[in-house]
Amino acid sequence: MEIRAARGDDWGQIWPFFARIVAAGETYAYDRDTQEDEARRIWMVRPPGAVAVAVDSGAVIGSASMYRNRGGGGSHVASASFMVDPDHAGKGAGRALGAHFLVWAREQGFRAAQFNSVVETNDRAVALWRSLGFVALAAVPEAFEHPRDGRVSLLVMHTFL
Amino acid sequence: MEIRAARGDDWGQIWPFFARIVAAGETYAYDRDTQEDEARRIWMVRPPGAVAVAVDSGAVIGSASMYRNRGGGGSHVASASFMVDPDHAGKGAGRALGAHFLVWAREQGFRAAQFNSVVETNDRAVALWRSLGFVALAAVPEAFEHPRDGRVSLLVMHTFL
Repeated sequence: MEIRAARGDDWGQIWPFFARIVAAGETYAYDRDTQEDEARRIWMVRPPGAVAVAVDSGAVIGSASMYRNRGGGGSHVASASFMVDPDHAGKGAGRALGAHFLVWAREQGFRAAQFNSVVETNDRAVALWRSLGFVALAAVPEAFEHPRDGRVSLLVMHTFL
Repeated sequence: MEIRAARGDDWGQIWPFFARIVAAGETYAYDRDTQEDEARRIWMVRPPGAVAVAVDSGAVIGSASMYRNRGGGGSHVASASFMVDPDHAGKGAGRALGAHFLVWAREQGFRAAQFNSVVETNDRAVALWRSLGFVALAAVPEAFEHPRDGRVSLLVMHTFL
């Protein structure tokens, strides 16, 4: 498992699992029919943001899109979005990308990291962020319509760096 | 005090107080040097979002930018941003715009409203939202660098509709 900075031509390997994950509608508050040009605009952030990919046997199997959470007086707090190809779950790509994000954020001088909307029933993600030091500051009630679980909470998760 | 839907040509009256409020850096996590084209893109949201203005004696003295807080499974939660010309504070424009937002959000079918980043030392705003039924679900610690107060919390405020 290699974690490296994304190149523009990695998008072609990110888009298939981005589309599949977003179409499932279980973990991201993006429109389930998000089109490729909008998806690329969302994910492939430009500096001072950065995009990383997890590469396994030469294939991009996951990605992290990393950026400041807010501008102005909020620009010392980082945030990020993560996706791992469901066909490659369980190989540690999510954990490796999460750890990479925290290193990146510290290197960039961020003082904290915040995830604004972690679906509470996304057990794998919640457990991963807790294991990396994040705490849930709030559960916004009924904020996410899950296709099977109904209206569940979105967690605001946070850690100082 | 009239509250009405904004027209495109209202922007010319919104921009001066937008610029002044953002440059002060005390209440919004926008870059303090946000340029006009970016400001207009942020504020003048398109449907399904909407923009309202508060008009007093023929002049636009405040505005609300109203939109869904997230896409996909989060699209039943509304959010909004509010600005009132500091030269016209205390006339009730903020309260009138806030009440208008709640009516608009209910009419649009939203089930809840959420503000993601209310600066805790913005006493007027915090008191206004509480009086309109919002509760603070979390205070994200040290998330906002206030030019005088230092690192203060950003409140996540929420109400069901």
